[in-house]
Amino acid sequence: MKPEVMLMVAGGVAAAALVVAIVISAKVKAWSAGNDDMRRIALAIRKGAMAFLRTEYFILFFFVLALGSALTIWIDAGSWGHFQTVLNDGNIGGLLTGQAITVGDDVIVGGTALCFLAGALCSVVAGFIGMRTATTANVRTTEAARTSVGDALKVAFSSGAVMGLSVVGLGLFGVVALVYWRGGYHDNGSLPDPDLIFGFSLGASSIALFARVGGGIFTKAADVGADLVGKVEAGIPEDDPRNPASIADSVGDNVGDVAGMGADLFESYVGSIIAAMALGYAASTANQEKLVFLPILLAAFGIICSIIGTFFVKAEDEAGLSAALHRGLLVASLLFAGGAAGIVYFTKTHLIVPEGAVHAGTWGIYYALAGGLVLGLLIGKATEHYTSERKRHAQDIAMQSETGAATNIIHGLAVGMQSCAIPMLLIAAAVYGANYASGLYGIGIAAVGMLSTLGISLAVDAYGPVADNAGGIAEMSHCPPEVRERTDALDALGNTTAAIGKGFAIGSAALTALALFYAYAQKTGILAQGINILHIGTFVGFLIGGILPFVFSAMTMKAVGRAANAMIEEVRRQFREIDGIMEGNAEPDYARCVSISTRGALRQMMLPGLLAVAIPVAVGMTPELGAKAVGGMLAGSLLCSVLMAIFMANAGGAWDNAKKYIESGAHGGKGSDAHKAAVVGDTVGDPFKDTSGPSLNILIKLMSIVSLVFATAFWTAG
Amino acid sequence: MKPEVMLMVAGGVAAAALVVAIVISAKVKAWSAGNDDMRRIALAIRKGAMAFLRTEYFILFFFVLALGSALTIWIDAGSWGHFQTVLNDGNIGGLLTGQAITVGDDVIVGGTALCFLAGALCSVVAGFIGMRTATTANVRTTEAARTSVGDALKVAFSSGAVMGLSVVGLGLFGVVALVYWRGGYHDNGSLPDPDLIFGFSLGASSIALFARVGGGIFTKAADVGADLVGKVEAGIPEDDPRNPASIADSVGDNVGDVAGMGADLFESYVGSIIAAMALGYAASTANQEKLVFLPILLAAFGIICSIIGTFFVKAEDEAGLSAALHRGLLVASLLFAGGAAGIVYFTKTHLIVPEGAVHAGTWGIYYALAGGLVLGLLIGKATEHYTSERKRHAQDIAMQSETGAATNIIHGLAVGMQSCAIPMLLIAAAVYGANYASGLYGIGIAAVGMLSTLGISLAVDAYGPVADNAGGIAEMSHCPPEVRERTDALDALGNTTAAIGKGFAIGSAALTALALFYAYAQKTGILAQGINILHIGTFVGFLIGGILPFVFSAMTMKAVGRAANAMIEEVRRQFREIDGIMEGNAEPDYARCVSISTRGALRQMMLPGLLAVAIPVAVGMTPELGAKAVGGMLAGSLLCSVLMAIFMANAGGAWDNAKKYIESGAHGGKGSDAHKAAVVGDTVGDPFKDTSGPSLNILIKLMSIVSLVFATAFWTAG
Repeated sequence: MKPEVMLMVAGGVAAAALVVAIVISAKVKAWSAGNDDMRRIALAIRKGAMAFLRTEYFILFFFVLALGSALTIWIDAGSWGHFQTVLNDGNIGGLLTGQAITVGDDVIVGGTALCFLAGALCSVVAGFIGMRTATTANVRTTEAARTSVGDALKVAFSSGAVMGLSVVGLGLFGVVALVYWRGGYHDNGSLPDPDLIFGFSLGASSIALFARVGGGIFTKAADVGADLVGKVEAGIPEDDPRNPASIADSVGDNVGDVAGMGADLFESYVGSIIAAMALGYAASTANQEKLVFLPILLAAFGIICSIIGTFFVKAEDEAGLSAALHRGLLVASLLFAGGAAGIVYFTKTHLIVPEGAVHAGTWGIYYALAGGLVLGLLIGKATEHYTSERKRHAQDIAMQSETGAATNIIHGLAVGMQSCAIPMLLIAAAVYGANYASGLYGIGIAAVGMLSTLGISLAVDAYGPVADNAGGIAEMSHCPPEVRERTDALDALGNTTAAIGKGFAIGSAALTALALFYAYAQKTGILAQGINILHIGTFVGFLIGGILPFVFSAMTMKAVGRAANAMIEEVRRQFREIDGIMEGNAEPDYARCVSISTRGALRQMMLPGLLAVAIPVAVGMTPELGAKAVGGMLAGSLLCSVLMAIFMANAGGAWDNAKKYIESGAHGGKGSDAHKAAVVGDTVGDPFKDTSGPSLNILIKLMSIVSLVFATAFWTAG
Repeated sequence: MKPEVMLMVAGGVAAAALVVAIVISAKVKAWSAGNDDMRRIALAIRKGAMAFLRTEYFILFFFVLALGSALTIWIDAGSWGHFQTVLNDGNIGGLLTGQAITVGDDVIVGGTALCFLAGALCSVVAGFIGMRTATTANVRTTEAARTSVGDALKVAFSSGAVMGLSVVGLGLFGVVALVYWRGGYHDNGSLPDPDLIFGFSLGASSIALFARVGGGIFTKAADVGADLVGKVEAGIPEDDPRNPASIADSVGDNVGDVAGMGADLFESYVGSIIAAMALGYAASTANQEKLVFLPILLAAFGIICSIIGTFFVKAEDEAGLSAALHRGLLVASLLFAGGAAGIVYFTKTHLIVPEGAVHAGTWGIYYALAGGLVLGLLIGKATEHYTSERKRHAQDIAMQSETGAATNIIHGLAVGMQSCAIPMLLIAAAVYGANYASGLYGIGIAAVGMLSTLGISLAVDAYGPVADNAGGIAEMSHCPPEVRERTDALDALGNTTAAIGKGFAIGSAALTALALFYAYAQKTGILAQGINILHIGTFVGFLIGGILPFVFSAMTMKAVGRAANAMIEEVRRQFREIDGIMEGNAEPDYARCVSISTRGALRQMMLPGLLAVAIPVAVGMTPELGAKAVGGMLAGSLLCSVLMAIFMANAGGAWDNAKKYIESGAHGGKGSDAHKAAVVGDTVGDPFKDTSGPSLNILIKLMSIVSLVFATAFWTAG
């Protein structure tokens, strides 16, 4: 296949994914939205979610403008001086669109800022579509649950599928379009250096930062606020309409778990494809074109498999729910595993004996790919082992709750720490294997393999918050008990898939960041010299890198605390000042709670966000530190971030399920002292698993891609 | 000065320190031990502490035997085959004493196992002396507090000084004696390769593992058990004699904070001296002898300064307590800073332009030394900033306690994570500066500088638990309130010095481990090639290294939980089964609580201890991993361990002081809801700051020294 044809095919598949997403979305909308009560609540949630997005996009606008300008000046033009010359020559248009411009003795090629904008835009659009669909589907899921759990699953999962397909469709389409553009395929097509489109990945990362960190703060501030005052102080049940924070809590599910998770995985998806292309570009000159285009072809095929997989997600009753989701995933994975072998074989992609690679060649690449795919599944299994209420660890935490909150917390922290070992060893094995099979390119391809079926795995993930919302709406609109039972069944499964999804998100972030890290080493030329920890500048960078996830987590946790406090004060105020609220005669001011959480979240995320972007650039530009120190920093940060992310996600998941285990009747059940202790653990776990932990995924990818894009401006010895 | 003379002088100073320790110890014993009630309680504590030591030494015996045998076979003889040959030739004696033996074509030189035994023995003796004195001094401090706080300080601090001087005296004496022996100074003195005495450091590390990890588990199991059942369930005050765990709690102070802390710093002290010698040996051939002996001379001079410093620790009243301790430390530090300049200048030690070192030469070495000394003081300050109840962070945690235990925990975890930044940046600056000033040798010398005045800084540290015990004895023996007030004043200061001491212990462990890490790189020859994180085997080691502190911490935290649970059950049983216990008519069975904590602690520490020794050896001996992967592992483990140690120590300290701040009247004071929440935080912080955090100090040093000693047996490429 000629490159143009490959690009056309991949672009076509990506566009098809978007069309399918639109069709599914229309189908979702066609379901009934229920009675007036339900519609009113759903509208409040949607308004809240959209208000959050609007405020977020407003701040984002300035962030993108600032970072885009910096890119135009220091990366596209190369320096302030160059930029001024281009400006004076009136050639800014050429700089932005990436024409070759002669400035003095140098020839500069811009366009990175535009790629950056495109990446940001695609991510925003994907998030927006996902959020709109989720807030359309939640109430329709509740209504469908009146009929059967099968119908409810159909609506909720369809909403997830829209999110999943939008993410992979826009991600792949963006990459393909930029490669087509940068390669000049409209006239004399030539293979573009993937360097030229790194900006796309940076754009995706920037949005992910806001969506994941800001969304994570929002959702937990609302959740903690609603729980502490509503459940603990006022003694009213979860999702009770008398609780002023109940709508904010439902909004949070969308903001954090739909938009945040989507942006996180959009970033991983795009990052892994681009990193693999860059590593392929550098790996071999003989097969360069095939190596560069293979990730695109695989991604396109993965989308097809995902779409096919969605047709297999169907259930008749509660008992069939879990099987339905797993069947969809399994079909997609098996199809991909089989078909990818064909693609790799028929393109006969192989490397010219890369260093350290033993099984290099066609099948070597396939082994790396399959390793990534299997890694994703195994990390999910490991996560389940440490967090599921049917397994020992969560049950141990429940038992420790009998002696109070302190022992519950101690044990939960210990379980979280312990749970780091297996996923890290799995990652180590996958990376070692991929490198053994086909060198550094293998590591990039492993990341692509892991994310290949993202279309459906994200659908499984994003269905959870819709089910959660549906349950909330059922409760608030006083639906009959069997409706709530069905949404509860959907929600319980959603919690399991969410925990597994978190493990998958961390694993894919680690692999993507690692591929970007190697691409960085490749690009700066330090791959040959190595990133030597014994070198003192590198070592200093290494120590700084280790600090960052700790400081970043501290900031996001405190942010949740602050935003939650504001929420608590507000809920208490409403209980105090609005007469008749507890009797159900007066409606609480839901919107005010949403706006407090929104403002809190977005204000609190500014500083950590700036840190993630500014520190790699600052270290890179400092003399005596420079490119090598950034290499050390990325290594230190990667290690500590992945460990902390797993620790926090699993501790949070285990606390959550320990509480659920007690609520199911163990150790005295609901209302017992053990239950009170478990609620404390669950509350501590909330920012752990839904704010700080996932934010670290963004931190490592963002730091890697920032370093990669700004690498040309870094200080190097001699 | 000739080497023999230098060794004689240093050995003489070390011996003098031991004599001074014996004299002070005798003086402590001469104070009155108070009335029968006090003597009875003190005896129970002493018996408990000694029972713990006996059990610990019993297990240790087998551990030392096993590791000593492994050293004899694989390090001294070099292989099982060699060992059998030596055994058949009947030359085991020669092997153990380090004679050169010809086996086939090889010449082998043993003696490492004997050094190992010597190191273990010195550490055991130092711990034993410290513990005996502390359990003699506690009751005498109570009795002296009847007269004045000045007298009480004198007794308590004297006890600390005995510990401090025993540690530095035995540490330096051991090093000097071994250098004298391995250098053959009794006939034709020659400079021994410091490699030959690494075993001494390994011995010290092995004991530290048992003392620190086992002691840490004991003390917190007793503390948590005593608090949860006594204070929370039965509602009796702390240190109430009706609480069956009260004696175990006091025993724990000695076991954890005297013996554990002492062994930890003994290991750092010995490790830093030996690592600096090894780095000096490799740094330059022209001044080799001076570079190797300088650390010994500096250590000897530091001992003199410490002894002089102790004379300045005197106070008239409560208000003068803090100043007294600081005066002693300051005098010793200033004396050392001045005198060391003289020593460095007159020995005219300089390096022949080491790579990367700019200010090499006499003053370069002095700058590195001074940097280490200042680093120790600054890390203490940073620790105080994050944990003191007079500072913002602990007060913020107290405020967050108003909304319950969950927000208290979240904020405390965040403070701990945030507090990592400054100490890590300080360490980075010190390492960078030391290397800039005089290369890798500078890093070794910085560690020596930091630990030079350990004689007095450990005395300040080890006085705390004696004061704590004294308060407990005052309470249990119903002393008049003014006695308890005075011991409380001593104890409060002890808490502050303990927190600072923890920061110092972490910082010195980091610097020592780093020096050992560079010595490892030196010895294995990978210093020249570098420890390249991009190399895939190294990267796998790096990931494994990062996992270890998380798994290690999880194990030690769970161990506390398990041992505490056993304690809780026992205390509840005694309350239930022994009639008249609550009325004070019947005496609880203290000994049973002590023995439960002892068994629990020592059983639980076996697995983490084995891991720390076995994993570096296993990774090092695995083909395709080997020496380089161990290098990566040490780097990953060092980074994550130091971060986790600071995180846990400071979070624990801040929770502790947030509780104290509330108890002093803030946020409703004792008994308020905020106080209850703060108690939960404090309980979570207990294993954080006193078990898991400090255990990581041991982990990194032990892993480094194990790798260093076993390096010759590691796999290397090609």
